[in-house]
Amino acid sequence: MSDIKITLPDGSVREFPQGVTGLQVAQSISEGLMRNVLAAKVNGEVIDATRAITQDAHMQLLTWKDSEGKATFWHSSAHLLAEAIEAIYPQTKFGIGPAIENGFYYDIELPEGKLLSQNDFEEIEKKFIELARLKSEYIRSEVGKADAIKYFTEKGDGYKLELLEGLADGTITFYQQGNFTDLCRGPHIPNTSFIKAVKLMNVAGAYWRGDISRKQLTRIYAITFPQEKELKEYLYLLEEAKKRDHRKLGKELELFAFSENVGMGLPLWLPKGTLLRERLEQFLRKAQVKAGYSPVITPHIGSKKLYEISGHWEKYGADSFQPINTPEEGEQFLLKPMNCPHHCEIYKIKPRSYKDLPLRLAEFGTVYRYEQSGELHGLTRVRGFTQDDAHIFCRPDQVREEFGKVIDLVLYVFRSLGFEEFTAQVSIRDMEDLKKPENERKYVGDPADWDKAEREIEDVAIEKGLDIIVVQGEAAFYGPKLDFMVKDALGRKWQLGTVQVDYQLPKRFELEYIGSDNTRHRPVMIHRAPFGSMERFIAVLTEHCAGNFPLWLAPEQVAILPISEKYHDYAQEVKRKLEERDIIGLLDERSEKIQRKIRDAEVKKIPFMLIIGEKEETNGAVSVRRHGEGADEGSVSLDAFIERFEKEAKV
Amino acid sequence: MSDIKITLPDGSVREFPQGVTGLQVAQSISEGLMRNVLAAKVNGEVIDATRAITQDAHMQLLTWKDSEGKATFWHSSAHLLAEAIEAIYPQTKFGIGPAIENGFYYDIELPEGKLLSQNDFEEIEKKFIELARLKSEYIRSEVGKADAIKYFTEKGDGYKLELLEGLADGTITFYQQGNFTDLCRGPHIPNTSFIKAVKLMNVAGAYWRGDISRKQLTRIYAITFPQEKELKEYLYLLEEAKKRDHRKLGKELELFAFSENVGMGLPLWLPKGTLLRERLEQFLRKAQVKAGYSPVITPHIGSKKLYEISGHWEKYGADSFQPINTPEEGEQFLLKPMNCPHHCEIYKIKPRSYKDLPLRLAEFGTVYRYEQSGELHGLTRVRGFTQDDAHIFCRPDQVREEFGKVIDLVLYVFRSLGFEEFTAQVSIRDMEDLKKPENERKYVGDPADWDKAEREIEDVAIEKGLDIIVVQGEAAFYGPKLDFMVKDALGRKWQLGTVQVDYQLPKRFELEYIGSDNTRHRPVMIHRAPFGSMERFIAVLTEHCAGNFPLWLAPEQVAILPISEKYHDYAQEVKRKLEERDIIGLLDERSEKIQRKIRDAEVKKIPFMLIIGEKEETNGAVSVRRHGEGADEGSVSLDAFIERFEKEAKV
Repeated sequence: MSDIKITLPDGSVREFPQGVTGLQVAQSISEGLMRNVLAAKVNGEVIDATRAITQDAHMQLLTWKDSEGKATFWHSSAHLLAEAIEAIYPQTKFGIGPAIENGFYYDIELPEGKLLSQNDFEEIEKKFIELARLKSEYIRSEVGKADAIKYFTEKGDGYKLELLEGLADGTITFYQQGNFTDLCRGPHIPNTSFIKAVKLMNVAGAYWRGDISRKQLTRIYAITFPQEKELKEYLYLLEEAKKRDHRKLGKELELFAFSENVGMGLPLWLPKGTLLRERLEQFLRKAQVKAGYSPVITPHIGSKKLYEISGHWEKYGADSFQPINTPEEGEQFLLKPMNCPHHCEIYKIKPRSYKDLPLRLAEFGTVYRYEQSGELHGLTRVRGFTQDDAHIFCRPDQVREEFGKVIDLVLYVFRSLGFEEFTAQVSIRDMEDLKKPENERKYVGDPADWDKAEREIEDVAIEKGLDIIVVQGEAAFYGPKLDFMVKDALGRKWQLGTVQVDYQLPKRFELEYIGSDNTRHRPVMIHRAPFGSMERFIAVLTEHCAGNFPLWLAPEQVAILPISEKYHDYAQEVKRKLEERDIIGLLDERSEKIQRKIRDAEVKKIPFMLIIGEKEETNGAVSVRRHGEGADEGSVSLDAFIERFEKEAKV
Repeated sequence: MSDIKITLPDGSVREFPQGVTGLQVAQSISEGLMRNVLAAKVNGEVIDATRAITQDAHMQLLTWKDSEGKATFWHSSAHLLAEAIEAIYPQTKFGIGPAIENGFYYDIELPEGKLLSQNDFEEIEKKFIELARLKSEYIRSEVGKADAIKYFTEKGDGYKLELLEGLADGTITFYQQGNFTDLCRGPHIPNTSFIKAVKLMNVAGAYWRGDISRKQLTRIYAITFPQEKELKEYLYLLEEAKKRDHRKLGKELELFAFSENVGMGLPLWLPKGTLLRERLEQFLRKAQVKAGYSPVITPHIGSKKLYEISGHWEKYGADSFQPINTPEEGEQFLLKPMNCPHHCEIYKIKPRSYKDLPLRLAEFGTVYRYEQSGELHGLTRVRGFTQDDAHIFCRPDQVREEFGKVIDLVLYVFRSLGFEEFTAQVSIRDMEDLKKPENERKYVGDPADWDKAEREIEDVAIEKGLDIIVVQGEAAFYGPKLDFMVKDALGRKWQLGTVQVDYQLPKRFELEYIGSDNTRHRPVMIHRAPFGSMERFIAVLTEHCAGNFPLWLAPEQVAILPISEKYHDYAQEVKRKLEERDIIGLLDERSEKIQRKIRDAEVKKIPFMLIIGEKEETNGAVSVRRHGEGADEGSVSLDAFIERFEKEAKV
């Protein structure tokens, strides 16, 4: 047998005997790697790490770190779950068992009369781990259709037989581990011992093949991990995420609410949420003005003509909030789905010269976009939201510098709010795709401008120290863009800010400037919104800090807690003095015990509690307690507290 | 002849011989008064001051200070204008000549071929004054219809003949002064010598009887005064008003603009206007928070159902922006015409106790109301505007105190912005009208609450030192109200803030609170908006201060003017240092002469100019020049200037 060449992702080429497996390739690199290899990606296709490779190939070894490695792991776990269930409930019939975003499920039909509940989970998990420890290999075999039918007919599993109906002879494979054989295309992990931890999450009903006229099967959701501690961590994060759910905290902390009469997906900002939001806006407004932006305010509607010019009507009209008629025949307006057309009109208010550019128009612009009611979710998916929007009108030679400045601003904003980890995706044209004749007119604008802008965006993102991924073919037809993803305290990724070059709108709105050459030129537009929207950002921020907002943003910053009615006068004086310094104090004058008052202030996540008794009144002092610290820090003068507060509240 | 009793407005009763005239009654009081009496109001009817009174009567002597006195004066002036025109253009035919808000007009048909222009005004004015000085009396005579027809037939005045057609015999009167006789109901001033000054304002076309199928006459607009200096003052104010027109200044100072593509009546706030507006909002927001208001933010649309509950749909639906359909069958939204329904929904988010009241929800809420395109006017009449809105939900026993607090806030706001003169109108029920059985259900709510609230509003307004007018029958059906009128620098009155009690919405929205008696009660709502709307207020403020905004509001506060390029570095440093203190500086780096730069900064009405040359750079100083003062104040250190600025910019 002659050797074959295996090219690894780093470009290195190694020679192996024909028939080498992924596992063996891994072993040739290190024993450690071999123990972690879940599958192999060979020439773009994921296969078992135990399958023989017979020709030269590109190979990537997939581990738990790769999403395709995880999917293989969970798919194999589904087979093992089936084996465990079959061991406990022998007459069970099996539907399908795929991997999903977090874990996997298996749709099954339990023996007549058996109803699965949470109480059964422990037994199944125990059996699952017992089987996993057997280190059973996942064995692949190609099966003729007749044999396959024979096998499942004998087993009495009608669902598998139905699945077989759709498959052609010669394409059918079985996978077997231990006592369980499944009709399956694979791939799978080498053996069951890779799976060290399992948790059954949930049980639900699911119609066979999603058809409500068919039988309802039992769907068991579960998740597995290669290490016990990873499961623990996952369950902890899940619990934390539930506690931090912005919909739950938004209600508890009285930040926002929804009302059926106003309409779904249209948040009402309650006093505390409004305070928080307005402080955030004020913070960003200030940062933007410092960065040379000019705030503007535009109406929430525009004539239909405006959106015909911009192209939005043609593109989104039918799926959107419909036009608003007026008592005047033929007059029609639209709720604005974005602020850019209005800003283009402001650009056109007067002639612009190259010296006036860049013109950076910023607006906290509330826009309305119709979403299906089923897709609405808290503040992250709404029908009305306020973008921290801005449009930069600049010359083509200013794109790079403006992009850099936007990145600076976005990073400043994210960091000020405690987000330290972010990545960025740069979306550019697909150059291969572009070579096809039918795609010649796919992108608007001068290809030379595109080339330059794409290069510059990448350059400047790297220069600013961003961790970037460049994705070909993801650019909008009107320009390349950069999207920011932040990681929150639970490690979840959120897409927030976006920076988008636009060659299209300046053309549609016939925007111009007089260049230094005294002739007319077309400006470039850059759309950008660091937060994305106030709604989405506050949702993410709430989950990130679990409702413990930074001091400067906290809707109630200080709870003033007199230990008895005798100290109400002094407590009110404290409140007044705090208010003079714009510190928002909640005065708890209820006739409750101080322990109760402290507990309630803790629940409200108020950063500081000031406990007031005789000593404090006599000395013009307050006894300070920090949220979540469980003990008083002792008495300090009110002035000293204010000084400390102002230091801590600085952004 | 027996005496008759004349009761004067102060309630005093005087006896006069039967046949006494208004003029004689005036004379009995003082010669000065007699010289000023223009007409008399006898038992509610305005008549000539020269007409005999034959029975006991209530009498008010009308002078230039009374609007009815002015109207009489101008009506008499119209007759005199006709006489002057007839003297110059003998064959002229006359239509009608009424008094209007400012002055009067006469519709005439000039002799064939004569076209009147501004060039003819002086000649007519000269003739007018010449005739006025003749001291011709206005002589009233009752004329039979046949004689009247004969007179105008002989004169050849078809228009008067047509007017006569509509009159019944026995009701026809002529008035004659000098050589001119007119068909007229009167009343008129005693004689022409009262009129000391005239100005022809304008000439326009006007169809006879407003019918475009009839002949187009020439309409001459004019105004007259009892003193020459009053005319001068009027013309000066007119000129000033033109200069101060917010539409003109808004364009010149780049505060706001309109775009046809966005839509009529939908202002685009340009950067400088936005800055001004946001500062105003910030100022009011702060004052409101200090006064115990809770800011909220609500969407700009609401489901149609919300407005069915509030009653707005039924009342205004057809004349408004029409409902917004969505891709979902039957789902409809409306642009919000007011914020109150949304605030009611916030009230309902959770159960309220008497201890939670008053709840004061404040929002800078942008609302949309459809206005006919012909009625739109700059920022004072628009289709979208932002109210400085708030709704106070309180117990009936809190209405008085809350009203008082609102008045305090409104006065604080007006005074901070340089409006020193205001009056207030209290609108209450018409008690007489209410006695009629058909009006029993005219007003919503408990009559005892109304009685109390009306009394309290009046009391508290007086207590706060407001100059009030109480108007019966002007209350809305849902509650009594108080409207603020401010006088601007030109003496013009503007209606701005309003405070409105509402017993209706709490009922429609079924709002409740648990009282101290542990049972459910209905709260009262108070709507209030000190500015009325940001748009209207900024329009009024602009005209009030002629675009010379208070320093703290000025969109550009300081112009930095280097005398040559050599000082640009230092000028930039000055700009940076000012920005650190949130002072907005415009740096003029053009290569223009310093005189030109100063002139341009003056035109932009920038409060401070800082001129920078060698001396300033060497000493870290700036040479200060105040807008409109015409001379430099000399060099001071930059720090000293900043200190001065901050002192002057304090609200």
